[in-house]
Parts: sequence; C-alpha cells; structure tokens
Amino acid sequence: MDPDTIAMISFTTDYGLSDGFVASCHGVLAVRAPQARILDITHLIPPGDVRRGAAILAQTVPSLPRAVHLAVVDPGVGTARRPIALATPGGYLVGPDNGLLLPAAEALGGVTTAVHLTNRSWFADEVSATFHGRDIFAPVAAHLFAGATLRDAGEEITDPVKLPPLYVEQAPGRLVSDVQTVDHFGNVQLAAPAEALAQLPASVEVNGSPARKTTTFGGAEPNTLLVFADSAGFVAVAVNGGNAATRLSATLGSRLTITY
Amino acid sequence: MDPDTIAMISFTTDYGLSDGFVASCHGVLAVRAPQARILDITHLIPPGDVRRGAAILAQTVPSLPRAVHLAVVDPGVGTARRPIALATPGGYLVGPDNGLLLPAAEALGGVTTAVHLTNRSWFADEVSATFHGRDIFAPVAAHLFAGATLRDAGEEITDPVKLPPLYVEQAPGRLVSDVQTVDHFGNVQLAAPAEALAQLPASVEVNGSPARKTTTFGGAEPNTLLVFADSAGFVAVAVNGGNAATRLSATLGSRLTITY
Amino acid sequence: MDPDTIAMISFTTDYGLSDGFVASCHGVLAVRAPQARILDITHLIPPGDVRRGAAILAQTVPSLPRAVHLAVVDPGVGTARRPIALATPGGYLVGPDNGLLLPAAEALGGVTTAVHLTNRSWFADEVSATFHGRDIFAPVAAHLFAGATLRDAGEEITDPVKLPPLYVEQAPGRLVSDVQTVDHFGNVQLAAPAEALAQLPASVEVNGSPARKTTTFGGAEPNTLLVFADSAGFVAVAVNGGNAATRLSATLGSRLTITY
Repeated sequence: MDPDTIAMISFTTDYGLSDGFVASCHGVLAVRAPQARILDITHLIPPGDVRRGAAILAQTVPSLPRAVHLAVVDPGVGTARRPIALATPGGYLVGPDNGLLLPAAEALGGVTTAVHLTNRSWFADEVSATFHGRDIFAPVAAHLFAGATLRDAGEEITDPVKLPPLYVEQAPGRLVSDVQTVDHFGNVQLAAPAEALAQLPASVEVNGSPARKTTTFGGAEPNTLLVFADSAGFVAVAVNGGNAATRLSATLGSRLTITY
Repeated sequence: MDPDTIAMISFTTDYGLSDGFVASCHGVLAVRAPQARILDITHLIPPGDVRRGAAILAQTVPSLPRAVHLAVVDPGVGTARRPIALATPGGYLVGPDNGLLLPAAEALGGVTTAVHLTNRSWFADEVSATFHGRDIFAPVAAHLFAGATLRDAGEEITDPVKLPPLYVEQAPGRLVSDVQTVDHFGNVQLAAPAEALAQLPASVEVNGSPARKTTTFGGAEPNTLLVFADSAGFVAVAVNGGNAATRLSATLGSRLTITY
Repeated sequence: MDPDTIAMISFTTDYGLSDGFVASCHGVLAVRAPQARILDITHLIPPGDVRRGAAILAQTVPSLPRAVHLAVVDPGVGTARRPIALATPGGYLVGPDNGLLLPAAEALGGVTTAVHLTNRSWFADEVSATFHGRDIFAPVAAHLFAGATLRDAGEEITDPVKLPPLYVEQAPGRLVSDVQTVDHFGNVQLAAPAEALAQLPASVEVNGSPARKTTTFGGAEPNTLLVFADSAGFVAVAVNGGNAATRLSATLGSRLTITY
C-alpha cells in the first residue's frame, strides 16, 4: 500500500443505530466519494459523551489503514463551536472542535495542520441547524478522501479544544487513576499506562478488594479481580468470568485506587 | 454518476442485530448481485412497526444515491399480503404491500409502476413460510440491481396499500399534530411540516409547558423545551441537553398540541 | 462465480457494538486483505455464549458465498485453549477451539482439515493477552483469504473440541427438545429438526398450553401458540403477533415438551 494513499473513511458517532442518521451520512459519502470504503467504528457512543468518543477513536485508529476519520459527538451542534479538520502523519480527522479528535490525532502522530471549516462550498447546498454530520462533516470528509487540500477547507487555527487530562497518580504503594472507559464486557480501563504495572506486586487491592496482577483472564480463579495490561496499552481491571464495572461500581468519571 | 445507474442496494428491516437474519439476506445479495454495494439503513425498526419503518425509510432515501431499496417490516409474512416492487424516478423499492414503501416512493418522485411479485423464477428455489426477506425480497432486489425489467417480476397493480394519514391541524393559536417518530436522542418529530413553524411566535406552549421556537439546540437555556425545524423538514420538539420524549411522555401514537 | 473462489470474510463475535473492537479487526483485515469484502454476521452474541454463537453461525453460513468465516466467542482467551482453523468444502473457519466452529463446518460439508494455529509469523507482531481477534484470528483469516495454504498455518489436529449435543427425544405422543436459540422476535427454536413435525397432529400442547401446528404466522388466531418449521430447518414455537419466549419462559438451556 502506498503510504500516501487514503484507503478508507472511518465513521464514529453517537447517532445510535435505530434511526436513519448514520445511513444518511453514508449516502452523502457514497454520492461524493463513491470509491471510498467506509468503516463504521461505532455509533453507540452515549449521546454527547465526547470523552468516551475520543477514547474509542484514539484506541481504534492505530489498527486501521490510512483514512479520513469522520467523528461526530457534538452536543454543541448549531452553537458557535467550530467545525474542524486535522491533518496528521497517519491521516485526517474531521468533526466538531470539542476535544473529540485530538487524542486520535496524537495516536496518528500529532497534528500537523488544523483548519476551521469555513469554506461553505464544501458543504451541502443547504445546511440544517441540527445535522452537521450529514451537511458539513460528511461532505468535508468526502472532499478530503477525494484528494482536496486541507488548507482549502478553511482558515488555519492553532488552538483546537483539548479535553482536560484524566487524573493519574503513581506513588510508592499506590496507583490512583481515573477510569477511561468501560467496555462491553465490563472491563474497566484506567487512564494509567500499562507501564505503571511494573511497580505492582502480584497481589494488590483495588478500592480495598483483593486483586491479582496477571497477564490473561484465565490467569486467576473465577470471579477474582484481575489487574492487567489491556490491548490498548492501559492498566485495566477485569473479573475472570464476570463484570468488573458492576463489581466496583465503576463508570466513566470514577477514580480507582490500587494499593499494595 | 450516470443518473440512470443504480449505485447500491439499501436495506431496512425490523430483524434486529443479534441473529443471523440480516447477514443471510446480505449473503443472498452477495451471491446474486456480487457487484452491489449494500447500505444498511437500520435493522432496529421495532418488530412489526410498519409506520416507523416507513418514516425512517422516507426520510433517509433522499440522502442516498440511486438505489434498489429493500425494506422488510412484515408482520403479515406468510399471509395473503402481497410482495411488491415499486419503480420511481429515484430508484426501486422492494418489500411487503403493507404501506411500508409508499412514503419513500413519494420522496423519490412518486410511483411510476407497481408490481405484485408473482414471478417465482426470481425467488429462492425453496421459499420458507416465515423468511421472505431472504427467499423473496432479497432475490428480487438483486434481480432489479442487475438490470432486470420490473414488469417481468409479476403483474402490474394500481392499488398498493397506503397507511392512514397522520393527524395535523393548523388553526389560529394552535398547531396539533400526531408524533411521527422519536429519535435516539429523544427528539420528537411531528407529522406537521416545518413550514407550519412560520405561524408560531418565539414563545409557545407544548402540551401546556413553556417552549421556545428556535433554530438550534443551543438557542435556549439548558433543559428548555425547543420547537424547531428538524433536518428532515418537519416540526420537532427537543430539550436542550435532555430528552423531549421522556419530558412529554411522547411516543409513536401520541398527539402534541402547540398553543400560543 | 468460480466455486473455488473465496468471495468474502464473514465476521461473528460477542464483542458488542459500543466499543472499537469490531472496527479494530476490520482494520486489520483491510490492511492485510484489502480486496476482501467483509460481512458482519452479528457481534451481539451474549458475552461468552459459545453455543449461541455456534448456532447463529451454522444457520447463516449456508446463505453466504464461499468465505473465510472468522468467529470469536472466546471466554478462554489467553488460556491454553488452542486457536484453530478448519477447511471445509464450503470455505474456511477461523476461531478458538471451544466448539464454536464445528456446527458451521458441518453445515459447509464437514471438516476436511483442522489446524492448530502455531505459525506465529501469520500473527500480529505483538500478540496481546486479551485480544486474539485482532492479533491472531483476523490476521490468519486475512492470510487464508489471500490464498495462503492452511497447512502452513500450523500443526494438523484431529480432535477439535465439540459442544455436547442438545437433547431431542421423539416418542409416540411426545416430542421433547432443548431450546437451541431464541430470536429477536421471541420465536423459540428447538434442537429438533423440522422433519419431527410430521408426527404431530394439527392440535398439540407445548408445556401444557394448547398450540396449533401451522406453516405460517398468520395461520392461526392472534396470540395463539404456533408450532412450525422455521427458515433454518428446525421445529420452532411462535406466538402470532406476540413473543413465545416470554409466554413460555423459554431461554437457552430450557427444554420444551410438545404432547399430543
């Protein structure tokens, strides 16, 4: 594969799967970039949950070929928040300027150019107030896939919005970290990088409950709390054969304390 | 794009995403029309909810390229209800004759030919009693995609089943309308066209609760009821940062009264 | 279509649709087998439910073109359970050696070669302990799609794990059978083959409740229990316009008794 080739358009939203919103955007992409392969990452980001959308996107793009990554989790649609596109060494990102895109941009090598999408000739002829995915972001993604120049999309900016960092504290005898995501299996991913596991002994406590440091789910008794390096490179907590999020009452916004 | 070219097959059902039903139909399409791009609109129409299926389909097809639109929400599968296909200026529609297809046909320019699918040589070799999506509708969609002539699919009919119209009443000081759909975000779409908003002042009441006419979700205080023109061209009610369907206890079948 | 051609990669998991796991595997397939069409069967197998995964896969593959079928329902990921691939007259199957693949292999004509995937050069450069879908199974599926030889994937085995058979008893006046699946509509599929219906009269009892043997959902009064041959060739129980699983409190693991 020519490394300069954009192979696909990926698509991530909080639109859900029960309406026609996702398909409408697919239709716009199919009309304007008929050669583009489209890969849905997920459309089940909880409505308006920018932080979860940012985490899922950042952890998925490294497995994808070079792409235009279209992402819309946009509680501010129709307000003054800017529509933006970012260029990185690993592809483009298109979406609202609310912090959604930057972690993925970092995962793709960092932002080389950021543009406020102000060139209305790239948009749909009529732009609705509430469906910028269909009317602004998908058309812009199609333009970039088709080879248009990012700087023609609008005005360069240097201040895209960043989400505040999650809390991680490493101290002797203690690792404290915000929860980054909870997955479909109830595994709890922390913001702490997997490297932080090196400091931990085999037996620890998570929020006061006994847990084992392990490398696989099968590496401990059933129903045991496990602390391990997950497939995205973060510290995570699971229950062998069970649901760690339920066991720990952990959700996005929770903070866990691992002691030893 | 040649406007006479059929670019894809779209696919809408109430089959859900947890069984193999959708994939079985994809398989039939892939075998019989291997060149066809297939676009899933949604498979989460509530089981048997023909009216919601019709609304989602009609509101999505305008964003898609010329297509064969395969749609199956078919509580009468295996009874005497006819399988049909419709030609329109904007593409074909294939599905059960229960009202599901006609609103989309209108959105695509109106029915030019309607056919009762009686040519069994277009069907699967064995037709099950309960899975006409796989055994009748998908094979017919594949035939039409591949360039077959609609009139060869069966006998022309002039009386496809229509859903009874939803109720809309515009009077001085009052707009009354049935709910057409409720989306994933809890936004409530009325059957009243967006043009009906012109008669409304900036401050109104929806079922007795204060609401603001606005153009964007950000155009009012958080948790305020908003009345606006949605992206499909209908009057809709939302809550800024909240769920209007829950707030108003509105579902399909509800009727809302906007007064001023 | 050349019958020796592999037309697509199908993909079945319990990964859910709310994380980036499915898309990460799609990305790996797109990088390593860019020409492959990918067909998602379902990703909503309940977590770890190998038996349901096996049933859905086996009942769907007959409708698909020749394919590499990638399936991951893998509660033992990271333990000693073997990763395997199977060749059949109808295509390949790739996944964990826990019984998931064998019913589909039977549906595709039976296993001709079974291989324990031990050739690490086919895997991702780094194999995580918990995400073998991305790091082992998807790369192997891509290799096979691209024409690699199964025997180069590892060591031939003759003892892939089989699920214990479900219980079916046919006796005069009685048909007893384990539930095989419950679908999105609440229809209850038994393990008993449709041929077992021949012994039944028109009026029977299911777990003591009156039921009608019929060929279509419309063939009885609304809310009547119906016993029929489903589209996959098994005896099934439905309620005309209702939910048989709820009516009968039937789930995977239940056993129904039909008497007459």
